[in-house]
Amino acid sequence: MTFTLAELASRVGGEVHGDGGLRIEGVAPLEDATGAQLSFFSNRKYRRAFEATRAGAVVVGTAEAVPPGKTVLRSANPYLAFAKISTLFHPPIEPVPEVAPEAVVHPGAKIHPSAQVMPLATVAAGAEIGARTILFPGVHVGEHARIGEDCLVYPNVVIRERCVVGNRVILQPGCVIGSDGFGFALDMEGEGQGPRHYKFPQVGIVVVEDDVELGANTCVDRATLGVTRIGRGAKIDNLVQIAHNVQIGPLSILASQVGISGSTKLGMGVVAWGQVGVVGHLTIGDRAELKAQAGVAQDVEAGARVAGTPAKPDVQWARNAAVYDRLTEMRRELRELKKEVERLRAEKKDGT
Amino acid sequence: MTFTLAELASRVGGEVHGDGGLRIEGVAPLEDATGAQLSFFSNRKYRRAFEATRAGAVVVGTAEAVPPGKTVLRSANPYLAFAKISTLFHPPIEPVPEVAPEAVVHPGAKIHPSAQVMPLATVAAGAEIGARTILFPGVHVGEHARIGEDCLVYPNVVIRERCVVGNRVILQPGCVIGSDGFGFALDMEGEGQGPRHYKFPQVGIVVVEDDVELGANTCVDRATLGVTRIGRGAKIDNLVQIAHNVQIGPLSILASQVGISGSTKLGMGVVAWGQVGVVGHLTIGDRAELKAQAGVAQDVEAGARVAGTPAKPDVQWARNAAVYDRLTEMRRELRELKKEVERLRAEKKDGT
Amino acid sequence: MTFTLAELASRVGGEVHGDGGLRIEGVAPLEDATGAQLSFFSNRKYRRAFEATRAGAVVVGTAEAVPPGKTVLRSANPYLAFAKISTLFHPPIEPVPEVAPEAVVHPGAKIHPSAQVMPLATVAAGAEIGARTILFPGVHVGEHARIGEDCLVYPNVVIRERCVVGNRVILQPGCVIGSDGFGFALDMEGEGQGPRHYKFPQVGIVVVEDDVELGANTCVDRATLGVTRIGRGAKIDNLVQIAHNVQIGPLSILASQVGISGSTKLGMGVVAWGQVGVVGHLTIGDRAELKAQAGVAQDVEAGARVAGTPAKPDVQWARNAAVYDRLTEMRRELRELKKEVERLRAEKKDGT
Repeated sequence: MTFTLAELASRVGGEVHGDGGLRIEGVAPLEDATGAQLSFFSNRKYRRAFEATRAGAVVVGTAEAVPPGKTVLRSANPYLAFAKISTLFHPPIEPVPEVAPEAVVHPGAKIHPSAQVMPLATVAAGAEIGARTILFPGVHVGEHARIGEDCLVYPNVVIRERCVVGNRVILQPGCVIGSDGFGFALDMEGEGQGPRHYKFPQVGIVVVEDDVELGANTCVDRATLGVTRIGRGAKIDNLVQIAHNVQIGPLSILASQVGISGSTKLGMGVVAWGQVGVVGHLTIGDRAELKAQAGVAQDVEAGARVAGTPAKPDVQWARNAAVYDRLTEMRRELRELKKEVERLRAEKKDGT
Repeated sequence: MTFTLAELASRVGGEVHGDGGLRIEGVAPLEDATGAQLSFFSNRKYRRAFEATRAGAVVVGTAEAVPPGKTVLRSANPYLAFAKISTLFHPPIEPVPEVAPEAVVHPGAKIHPSAQVMPLATVAAGAEIGARTILFPGVHVGEHARIGEDCLVYPNVVIRERCVVGNRVILQPGCVIGSDGFGFALDMEGEGQGPRHYKFPQVGIVVVEDDVELGANTCVDRATLGVTRIGRGAKIDNLVQIAHNVQIGPLSILASQVGISGSTKLGMGVVAWGQVGVVGHLTIGDRAELKAQAGVAQDVEAGARVAGTPAKPDVQWARNAAVYDRLTEMRRELRELKKEVERLRAEKKDGT
Repeated sequence: MTFTLAELASRVGGEVHGDGGLRIEGVAPLEDATGAQLSFFSNRKYRRAFEATRAGAVVVGTAEAVPPGKTVLRSANPYLAFAKISTLFHPPIEPVPEVAPEAVVHPGAKIHPSAQVMPLATVAAGAEIGARTILFPGVHVGEHARIGEDCLVYPNVVIRERCVVGNRVILQPGCVIGSDGFGFALDMEGEGQGPRHYKFPQVGIVVVEDDVELGANTCVDRATLGVTRIGRGAKIDNLVQIAHNVQIGPLSILASQVGISGSTKLGMGVVAWGQVGVVGHLTIGDRAELKAQAGVAQDVEAGARVAGTPAKPDVQWARNAAVYDRLTEMRRELRELKKEVERLRAEKKDGT
C-alpha cells in the first residue's frame, strides 16, 4: 500500500512543503527512514537526527524551523497526524471468525459468530464475547463475565467472574481484571485459634468502559461490594495496580507502575506519571497531574499539579528541591553566623 | 438466603438498636443499599453517606453516634462483624471434584479425589494437589511441587518445581511462586569470552505456609539454596516482589508494589504499605510498620514505625517534612540575618 | 555426584586450606550445611554463622580471617567460585526433544528437532524455535517471532509477534515481550465524538540479545517503530518495566520493580537498584549506578552514581540527607540566632 504525500496530508488535514507527488510506502524513525518513508520530528533533542534524516518527508509542527530543501508535512497536531498516517500503513488486526477446536468454551457461554477465540483460551459458563472481539491463547474469561465488541484480548489475560468489559477495549498480555481486593479484618480471637486476618469476601466487580487500554501485567481488583470502574477512554500502562472500589475517570492516563489505593476517585483526564502512589479514599480532581514517583496522601484539586512525597504543588516542590541541594551550604552559613554573633556579644561584654 | 438482623447480630456478637426482626437479604455499600440490605459505616469521610443511606440497617462501632431512627448493629469490631456477615451471604466457592479432560496431569502426579483441576491446568510429574483444592485454567504446578488442602489457585498462577504451598492458601491470578532468585557473580574473564554475569543456580524452594494470600502478578523467588518463606496467615497484595531467601513473618501484611530484597527477614505482624522497598540482608522486627513508599536501608526494631527514603522514625520524618516546606523561607531568613549581622559589625567598626 | 574438595578447588582456580581429600556431596547455606557439604561466607553480617557452621568446608576470599581448624577453599572471587561449584551439583535442565501432543503449534512454525515444546504451549504461524530450547506450558510465541538456541522459556511467558530472542536467554514465568508501547496522541476533536487518546500503532519489535535473563512478570514493550533492545548479557529482575524504544546496554543489571521510560538509552554495565524510575529520552552512561528508588530526570554520565528524586550524585544526596535529619534543629537555631541579633540591635539603640 502506498500513498502520495499530498494524499496523506489531505487525510490528516496537513500541508505539504515540497513535492506532494512523492510516493510514501511506510513510516520510520528519523535515523532509519528511507526516501520512500515518512518520519516525524518534534522533540528538540532529536534536531540533529532531523537534519540528517534521509526520510522522503517528515511530519512537523506548523511553526517548526525546517532546513532548506527538506520536504515536510506540516500539521497543527503533528503527533496525531503521524499516528493517523501510521495507522493507514498498519491497520488493526482483523478477527478470523472462529472458535478454535483447542479453545475450551463452556456450552453455556455466548460467543458472537464474528468473534475469534484462539486455541487454549477458556470461556466459562454464562460468559459473553461480543462481535469481532479476539481472544488470544491463554486468555481466561470467568463465569458470567462480559466482553464487548471489537476488543483485543492478548495472551494470558485473566478476566474473572462477572466483570464487564466494554467495546474497543485493548488488554495487553498478562493483565488481570477482577482479582480480589485486598481487604482483611483483624480478628484477635480467630475462633479460639489466635489472631488472624479475616478475609472480607470480595464480591463486587470491575467495569472497564469503552475505548480503554490496560497494560501488560496490570491488575484491577474487583470491588469489595459494588464496582471498581475504569472510565471511558482511559489509558493505563504496564504493571499498574488499581485497588478495589477505585474509580478512574474518563480519558485519564496512568503511566507504568502507578498504584491507586482502595476507594480513591480520579476525575476526568487525570494524568499520573510513572511509579506514582495514591493512598486510599482520596479524590483527585479533573485534569490533575501527578508527577513521577509522587506519593499522594491528600485530595488534589482539579487542574493542580503535584510532586514529591508527601505530594505538594509541583512549583513548591521544585523550589524546595532547589534549596535542598544547598542544605549543607546553609548549615555552614548558619554556623558561621552563630559564631560571628557570639563574637559581637563577647566584644560587647569586653567593651572592645 | 435471608437472616433476621437479630440472627446476624447473635452470630457476630453484636447488638441491635432498632428492629431485630428485620429480614436482611444481603450486604451493600451505603449509597446502594436497599431496605432489605445491611451496610457498614466507620470512616468519618462517609458520614454523609451514612446519614443518607436507605440501608435497612448499618453495622457500626459501639461508640458511634447514630442519627435518631436509624437501625444499627453495634459491634466492638464492626469491620470484622460486617466481614463475617458478608461471608454468610457469599460463601466461598465449592470445588467440583474432577480433573477436566482438557487438563494435562502427568500420570506421576497425585490429585486428591476431592480436588478440582479445571481445563488447561497443567500438573507435572510428582506434584501433589490436596483435598478440595481448586486449580483454575492456565495454572501450572511444576515437578514435585505440593499444594495443600482447600486452596484456591486462580487462573495462570505458576508454582514452579518443588515449591510447597500449605492449606487454605489463596493465589490470585498470574501470581508466580518459585521463579529464580536474582543472583549473578561478575566473571571478568568469562572463559576467555570477556566479562559476563555468571548465573548462580537458584535451587532452593519457596514455602508458603497455611492461610496465606498472594496477590495478582505477585512474584516470590525461590531461594538460592534453602527456603524463601511466607509465614502463616501473611497477606500479600498485587505486584509485590519477594526476593530469594526472604522470610516473611506470620500475619504480616504487604500492600501492593512492595519490594523485599534478598535474605531480608520480616518478623511477625509487620505491615508494609504501598510501594515500600526494603534492601537485602535486613531484619525488620515484629509489628514494625513501614509507611508507603519508604525506602528501608537499615534494620527496624520491633514495633517501630518508619517513613521516607532513607527510612527514619515516622515522627521524625513528619517533622522534617514540615520544615522542608519552609526551606525557602528559612533560606531567606538566613540571608536577612546575615545582612543584619554584617550591618552590626560594620556599625561597630564605624563606631556608630 | 561427589567431588573431593581438591578437585573442586582445581576446577575453580582456588586453594584448599585443610583436608583436600574431603568428599563433597553438595552445597548448602552456613546454617544448614552438613560435614559433606560446602558452604560460602563473605558478608560480615553472617560471621557468627560462619564460625558456627558444621559445613565440611567453606568458600571464602583470599584474605578472609578463618578460625583455626576450619577447612576453607580460598578464591580471589569466592562468590563466582561457589556459583561454579553449585552448577556442578545442579546442572541446567536438559531438554527432552519433543513437541507435546497437547501443545498447539501452527503448521507454518519451525521447531528445531532438539527443542522441547511442553503441553499447552502455543507457537503461531511463521515462528521459529531454536535448538535445545524449552517452552514450558502456557508459553505463547506469536506470529513470526524467533527464539534462539538453548533458551529456557518458563510457564506463561508471552512473546508477541515478530519479536526476536537470542541464544541462552532465560525468561522467568509470566514475563511479557512485545506488548504495545504506551503511545497516544491527544485528539481534541475525535472525529466529532469529542476528545480521545488516539492510539499510535506500536508496530516495532523487541530484540532480546544473547545471554539475557528477564524476571517473572517483567514487561518489555515493543518499539513504536524500530526496536526496543535488551543488550547481550543484561540481567533484569522481576516486575521491571521497559518501555518502547528503550535500549538497555550489554551486561546491565536492573533490579526488581525498576521502570525505564520510552526511548531512554542505558549504556554498558549500568546498574539500577530496586524501584528506580528513569524518565524518557535520557542517556545513562556506561557503568553508571542508580541507587534504589532514585528518580532519574536528567542524563547521567558514565561511571556516575546517583540517588534520590530528582536524582543527584549519591555523595551529595547522602550529605543532604544527613543535614535533612537536622532540619528542625537548624530551624530552632535560626530562630534563636534571630532573637539574639534583635537583642544586640536593641541594646545598641538603648546604648546599653
